[in-house]
Amino acid sequence: MSLQAEMLRIGKQARSASVLLAKASTAVKNQALAIIAEQIEKHQERLLAANAQDVANGQAKGLDSALLERLTINPQRVASMIEGVQQIIALPDPIGEISQLQYRPTGIQVGKMRVPLGVVGMIYESRPNVTIDAAALCLKSGNATILRGGSEAVHSNQAIAQCIHTGLVCAGLPSTAVQVIETTDRAAVGELIKMNEYVDVIIPRGGKSLIERISQEARVPVIKHLDGICHVYIDDEANLDKAIAIAYNAKTHRYGTCNTMETLLIAQAIAPHVLPHLADMYQTAGVELRGCPATQILINGIKPATEEDWRTEYLAPILSIRIVPDLDSALEHIRQYSSQHTDAIVTENWSKAQRFLREVDSSSVMINASTRFADGFEYGLGAEIGISTDKFHARGPVGLEGLTSQKYIVLGDGHVRV
Amino acid sequence: MSLQAEMLRIGKQARSASVLLAKASTAVKNQALAIIAEQIEKHQERLLAANAQDVANGQAKGLDSALLERLTINPQRVASMIEGVQQIIALPDPIGEISQLQYRPTGIQVGKMRVPLGVVGMIYESRPNVTIDAAALCLKSGNATILRGGSEAVHSNQAIAQCIHTGLVCAGLPSTAVQVIETTDRAAVGELIKMNEYVDVIIPRGGKSLIERISQEARVPVIKHLDGICHVYIDDEANLDKAIAIAYNAKTHRYGTCNTMETLLIAQAIAPHVLPHLADMYQTAGVELRGCPATQILINGIKPATEEDWRTEYLAPILSIRIVPDLDSALEHIRQYSSQHTDAIVTENWSKAQRFLREVDSSSVMINASTRFADGFEYGLGAEIGISTDKFHARGPVGLEGLTSQKYIVLGDGHVRV
Repeated sequence: MSLQAEMLRIGKQARSASVLLAKASTAVKNQALAIIAEQIEKHQERLLAANAQDVANGQAKGLDSALLERLTINPQRVASMIEGVQQIIALPDPIGEISQLQYRPTGIQVGKMRVPLGVVGMIYESRPNVTIDAAALCLKSGNATILRGGSEAVHSNQAIAQCIHTGLVCAGLPSTAVQVIETTDRAAVGELIKMNEYVDVIIPRGGKSLIERISQEARVPVIKHLDGICHVYIDDEANLDKAIAIAYNAKTHRYGTCNTMETLLIAQAIAPHVLPHLADMYQTAGVELRGCPATQILINGIKPATEEDWRTEYLAPILSIRIVPDLDSALEHIRQYSSQHTDAIVTENWSKAQRFLREVDSSSVMINASTRFADGFEYGLGAEIGISTDKFHARGPVGLEGLTSQKYIVLGDGHVRV
Repeated sequence: MSLQAEMLRIGKQARSASVLLAKASTAVKNQALAIIAEQIEKHQERLLAANAQDVANGQAKGLDSALLERLTINPQRVASMIEGVQQIIALPDPIGEISQLQYRPTGIQVGKMRVPLGVVGMIYESRPNVTIDAAALCLKSGNATILRGGSEAVHSNQAIAQCIHTGLVCAGLPSTAVQVIETTDRAAVGELIKMNEYVDVIIPRGGKSLIERISQEARVPVIKHLDGICHVYIDDEANLDKAIAIAYNAKTHRYGTCNTMETLLIAQAIAPHVLPHLADMYQTAGVELRGCPATQILINGIKPATEEDWRTEYLAPILSIRIVPDLDSALEHIRQYSSQHTDAIVTENWSKAQRFLREVDSSSVMINASTRFADGFEYGLGAEIGISTDKFHARGPVGLEGLTSQKYIVLGDGHVRV
């Protein structure tokens, strides 16, 4: 069978399965998830062995250590996979929820009912835990899933897929509700993102270049997560303690995450009171500082920040700092350089806080809080399948609700239009 | 200037204007709308003259009468344009609305704020009233707009554009908040739908072939409205009076609308009690009936309905009828042939109504009501910019809310992540 024919077969199976999943009861979906969690626990040894094979192959191929680290599963990671599934079982079922049901002057009742999107295609790189997280979120939200993980994780993903299939079948759901693509042929991705008859949304997880390429070529809507160039602006009316705590936490809590601050903006009037102390803290923590000319005057011996720096997601212990005259200049800098992921202001001034909240066009906008809070768990979504830096459909952390749509429902009693 | 450069210039202007519109107050937006309505009233003669020129050109070019009819503006249509703008002024401003603001265990408050999409591109055919409706809806929802109407309506659209620009400028908003493309070069559409840096969504209004072509070529998300192959299913437990009223209204209230029933499904057990009487009513109204073999036995002398009929949006006084054994067969027919626009059941049976509501995957699903209710005004949206037959982002009638997105907001008091 040609690759194209094979992908079409997978797509058609997913579409058929999605019809059954859409009407599956909460109890049945939760039962499938519970069995999946049990299976992962029961077959832990098999899973670890499959993963060891992937890791050995990766080492032989000379994969870099960061990639190998993401690829590796250990008993602790298996435990957190199982915990993730348990958490998804505990979340309320979004499907079938009716809202805004109101009587209209004509006498009909009009409302909305939450429904699954249908078929979700996930394209991701090395982490095998995405296989189980994505399958569980899509299952709970009534969507069929086609999963295409990285070729370096193929044995791990197939071992996880076996556990998922057992759970589906034992709960009376079609095993095709979650399909893990076996071929490592890269052309499979090209087919998947073009099957708009069988796939309703594509969610890529990986580097910016992967996501850009998929967005360019896809014929199916894509929930995109591009880069996170996040800002904290310390206003001249900020509380000094809060400003220092937030600016330190937003950079140093974790360096490699998308919600980490990459550029610190500080109002001119407060800079001398906050920057020298903060600079000491950053430098003690091993953070390299790069600054605008005014910053360089306040902190001796740091590198200049270039135009390129303002546009860079370091994902590393590096921070660019800019001193700005006022809120307007901070907003202008953010408008120009922010990747519209997460931006925060520190201020005690009510009106400036309100302006920042309204005017900054990012998926998360924060007042007096660290950008590191931009996360599905912290927001109470329970789990996230990704973070959207788009405005269309879903924005910010995407949990169960982002995998759904709403249809209108109309309840009448023989009503006709006059 | 090349067409491409010209379109890029328009796109950049729209993006700049969108930043100002996003923060415009409700009062300013309503003021602009009020002046626009005044201007249209004041310059009614100029508008009618420009339209007369378009109609004369259209007649000279030999446009068909239906197209000329849609193109023509008369004082009554001007009055309804003005009324449309007044209604949009009266709608609540969706922008800035904060919802679901809740404390999280960490102490931060997390909620969502409604924001504009940014720049909306409208591509439409002959009706000049779309120019004013779209401009008003986008303005109220804080979006900049690029409008590309049909070349046959170019003078009418430019006359309306003048009124809009006066309103914008008098209210202190940039005139580039609404740009009506002057060139009639078709390549302008091709450029518009590819400028994903400057346009956030494309809404095409027109025939299925226009919409399919745009969806195929667009690099910007499209809110699609494909066809409306709508069904009414009369269950064997339907109330006869309600069934007859709904089935008659859904077909005969208007023939050319997308929410008109195109196929009537009837449960076998009730067919002999309802179909002969309904057939008389339809035939008296001049509706041509086409039926499945069982229908042909109950109604003498009608044409057979072919496979092609089940797939056809007639937009005309033609109805295909199929007698089915039960609800399952009706659901199966709808799954196979519905365009997922609007489908209705007539039944007194609670469980069957609930199943239909849950299982039919259409943008509007109705119980005991005519499909003709699927409409932004009837649903209380106030006005609609289109109807989406997609699931992604917006589904069903799209009003102000469909032109918006939501960002997360986080309110803290110096909170950091531990």
